[in-house]
Amino acid sequence: MSEMQEQLKRFLYGKLTAAAADILEKFGYPRGKAETTAWVLVEADARGVPSHGLVRLKVYRNEIKTGHVKPDAAPKIVHETPVSIVIDGGYGIGGDISKFAVEKMLEKAKVSGTCYAAVRNSNHFGMAGLWAEMLAAEGYIGMAFTNTIRCAVPTLGCGRLLGTNPIAVAIPSDMKDPFLLDMATTAVARGKIGVYKNRNKPLLDGWVVDEEGNSINSAAAANELLADPAGDKGGIVFLGGTNEDMGGHKGYGLGLLVDMLCAPLSGGAWTNEVFQTPEANVGHFFGAIRMDLFGDPAPIKKSVGDIIRTMQSSKPAKGQERVYTAGQKESIRRAISMRDGVEVDDATIAMLEKYTSEFNLKAIL
Amino acid sequence: MSEMQEQLKRFLYGKLTAAAADILEKFGYPRGKAETTAWVLVEADARGVPSHGLVRLKVYRNEIKTGHVKPDAAPKIVHETPVSIVIDGGYGIGGDISKFAVEKMLEKAKVSGTCYAAVRNSNHFGMAGLWAEMLAAEGYIGMAFTNTIRCAVPTLGCGRLLGTNPIAVAIPSDMKDPFLLDMATTAVARGKIGVYKNRNKPLLDGWVVDEEGNSINSAAAANELLADPAGDKGGIVFLGGTNEDMGGHKGYGLGLLVDMLCAPLSGGAWTNEVFQTPEANVGHFFGAIRMDLFGDPAPIKKSVGDIIRTMQSSKPAKGQERVYTAGQKESIRRAISMRDGVEVDDATIAMLEKYTSEFNLKAIL
Repeated sequence: MSEMQEQLKRFLYGKLTAAAADILEKFGYPRGKAETTAWVLVEADARGVPSHGLVRLKVYRNEIKTGHVKPDAAPKIVHETPVSIVIDGGYGIGGDISKFAVEKMLEKAKVSGTCYAAVRNSNHFGMAGLWAEMLAAEGYIGMAFTNTIRCAVPTLGCGRLLGTNPIAVAIPSDMKDPFLLDMATTAVARGKIGVYKNRNKPLLDGWVVDEEGNSINSAAAANELLADPAGDKGGIVFLGGTNEDMGGHKGYGLGLLVDMLCAPLSGGAWTNEVFQTPEANVGHFFGAIRMDLFGDPAPIKKSVGDIIRTMQSSKPAKGQERVYTAGQKESIRRAISMRDGVEVDDATIAMLEKYTSEFNLKAIL
Repeated sequence: MSEMQEQLKRFLYGKLTAAAADILEKFGYPRGKAETTAWVLVEADARGVPSHGLVRLKVYRNEIKTGHVKPDAAPKIVHETPVSIVIDGGYGIGGDISKFAVEKMLEKAKVSGTCYAAVRNSNHFGMAGLWAEMLAAEGYIGMAFTNTIRCAVPTLGCGRLLGTNPIAVAIPSDMKDPFLLDMATTAVARGKIGVYKNRNKPLLDGWVVDEEGNSINSAAAANELLADPAGDKGGIVFLGGTNEDMGGHKGYGLGLLVDMLCAPLSGGAWTNEVFQTPEANVGHFFGAIRMDLFGDPAPIKKSVGDIIRTMQSSKPAKGQERVYTAGQKESIRRAISMRDGVEVDDATIAMLEKYTSEFNLKAIL
């Protein structure tokens, strides 16, 4: 998205998190949950993933009004074993519930070596990779999955039954950062379409299709299609494309797998039912694996680092500058954001200004 | 691949497994390991995945000659906790080592609720889904991953450093079959190129690329490229395509994730080193999760089934007949194979006849 950079301005990370926390508090979030959520959002912007960043504030406010999010609800453990937890989020705040799930899971994984957490009746939890990375920072292999609002069509189908259902896995390395894979199982993230709309950019072919499988290039038209309540006129395409030739069924299979982990195991709703009632009921699935289950962690982490270093120094295709590994670009962007400020686009700045003015908060500009 | 069906003949499942076991025994496999391996191969053909079927016999024989496979080696547990095992396969037979890993893992998962097995110094273990499905048949969520011979290039790169590194996950349902995702993380499986070569079919654009990112359509030329020892002139493309526009970096990230699980955690080789020495050193990673970690398994399995049924009965795109779920096509094909016989192509029949004649075995035709 480097072609868009000229439309962006930079703000100090701490300024943005403080502003977002203040705004969320005015929306009705308790202070602690507002701070967690502000961190979740600004971390996404800082990594160059604006689809999961401050742009969501507007959605988050709307979700309080619609009753999807109940800011005062507290997550509860409804089933547990030494290696598992099932959590009912009570339709609370996604970031807060996820933080609770990860912390409780870590307590068990410290003792048992591993733990899973299946979460029902939650809400949008931000960038999946953040939770996986939090586990890696504690020395665990971390996993995070979530279902989402329905927006994606199965291979050969046109029913908008599934979500972008992301997969995130972080594995500690001997480098500053872990190996961090954080990916929507669709060809494009849902929020990216909103970002393209805000920035007046056309969608690429094969991101969103109509009921005949033809690409929709207008971000505004795609947004309308994704809001159509019937939900059988097309939607976002899974990783691998619209048919089986290039593996569309694999991306679709991964998306469905994520739903299998997030819904049946939590006793919650699957994508097709998420956000379809007044109360949202997003499901998550988390996992933590202690590195020493497989021996001394030091050589394991070195081996992870060796693979990353070899890939990063491997030969680029003609015309390309270099080969990256999963999470590397986001890590580079985050370092720049921490040094020079976090990039935010004009539409998001306007939204922040509207809220600071509405709530008589200190202007961030 | 329905356009190829006319070139195939059908043989009884039991006849093929018996013939394959006899041939493998003549190659030098102990009888039990020959039977396990014959089952692994014929199961792939029975499901319509010939890339992992009897066509491999020729490769398996060659691997004994080159020393990659040591038929008499026994797998050993080199590290264990209540929820994990690390196994050294001793360069033995992939199917035999994997069966050992799955059985030992199940013993622990029965007690602890979950277990992982990281395996080093193994060999080709057949279709990944077979091992995941074996765990689901015992009532567990089953996972199987493996690295492979190097054949795939990272996004934006041309170094053949990674494998097709498949992911398989099976989740028990209330239906006859579990949800079963079994997919190469590349756009196409390595073995499929051999099958296309045998059947004189051109490769599709975007399956294999040269060092400039141009597609190679000749299966023979692709095979040559993949045998090039330098390994920096292109290779198989990951799921999502050659660049980031359609998510090639996601398929590449998944492939790399599989290597992270199979190599560092097992203390073994990663793809770039697999099959590069006289002894093969393929790595696998398995996982088993008991369903009751999340509550009563019956409603969980029903929920899995409900999702599958909804997807299968969802609206097809215009011009399409129906929507499938992961594993469904293979399950349908397997049922037909068990009733009418397993389809085998001419080249594979010729190979089987050559071996039965060479070893004075009973002809299968």
